[in-house]
Amino acid sequence: MRLPAKTVERLSEYRRTLLECLSEKKNYIFSHELAARLHITAVQVRRDLMLIGYSSVQRKGYDVKELIDTIGTIIDSTESLNVAIIGIGNFGRALAAYFKGKRSKLNLVASFDTDPQKINKVIAGVKCYPHNELEKIIKELNIKIAILTVPPEFGKETAEEIVRYGIKGILNFTTIPVNVPSWVFLEEYDMITSIEKVAYFVKENQL
Amino acid sequence: MRLPAKTVERLSEYRRTLLECLSEKKNYIFSHELAARLHITAVQVRRDLMLIGYSSVQRKGYDVKELIDTIGTIIDSTESLNVAIIGIGNFGRALAAYFKGKRSKLNLVASFDTDPQKINKVIAGVKCYPHNELEKIIKELNIKIAILTVPPEFGKETAEEIVRYGIKGILNFTTIPVNVPSWVFLEEYDMITSIEKVAYFVKENQL
Repeated sequence: MRLPAKTVERLSEYRRTLLECLSEKKNYIFSHELAARLHITAVQVRRDLMLIGYSSVQRKGYDVKELIDTIGTIIDSTESLNVAIIGIGNFGRALAAYFKGKRSKLNLVASFDTDPQKINKVIAGVKCYPHNELEKIIKELNIKIAILTVPPEFGKETAEEIVRYGIKGILNFTTIPVNVPSWVFLEEYDMITSIEKVAYFVKENQL
Repeated sequence: MRLPAKTVERLSEYRRTLLECLSEKKNYIFSHELAARLHITAVQVRRDLMLIGYSSVQRKGYDVKELIDTIGTIIDSTESLNVAIIGIGNFGRALAAYFKGKRSKLNLVASFDTDPQKINKVIAGVKCYPHNELEKIIKELNIKIAILTVPPEFGKETAEEIVRYGIKGILNFTTIPVNVPSWVFLEEYDMITSIEKVAYFVKENQL
């Protein structure tokens, strides 16, 4: 069964929150507590967990460890997936740092850049390859997912290139939408949109 | 009239795309073209523009410049709003760079950090103040919006602090949700969720 994108997002957020609980030595949690930590409703939490067939609620709430594992069996790949960051500027570096010590089956195995100062160096824990070796390295290292953090003007052509070389999923952080064929999963995020949204509601709340 | 958050998001995306059109010297655009660039439906575009009272469609499509201005009158503040970045690491720097040369009424006026190496220096075009001057500087510079890029373990306490000092909108980029009172607008983004979503669909598409 393929879950809706929004459900997958929430499952990922549940897991992140449950891991936070574990680090606080909180081993059981009620749906309303989990919901409150994520600013959503308890009904939503229960509906999502029912959808993945998780129903072992105890009197003291969900077993945190067990639920982390269950979510993992649903959203994680059984084999690991290799990831590359295309464009290792400040944002690419920040993303590389986020990867470190994360529990997931996602391995950040390469970054790419055109800057000779960066090429063939290890940056934020990952080796930087020259942009013109995209095809070679994507194939050699079996990279399936790309995080796109190139300057916006290069987003579209870079996306087309990496799809040709076998990339199956793109997370686009440039500020310009890219086009991908239907068999490639695309997620786009533009921080200007988020900040304009915050500004709009701050303005409205002041009226 | 207060627009739904999703509509504001899309209006911001329309404007970004329309600005792209202008730079391509494309002065008119049909709803289906605008929709295609953003991977949504033309019906959605027309519905959103009707909602903001924009209906001056011509035979050759919407007037790009006019539509940019109309969207601006709806989502921008008439006065400018001051913004600060709290935590000026790699991610904070990348965000500061995004602000440069942007058309909006949002002014990035300060950043904050605890690192003595950064304090009182201009980083990515904006002055970095010490964390312990948060209250003073937020009030002096009339900062209303904060972008939170501190290490995750400091997210919650920093959010509480800045709300006390008068921040009305927070964009939280730490990986841990924060709590704010009802009068503060909160937008949260966790890149791990996005990457896990991409990975899930790459996995499902391979099955």
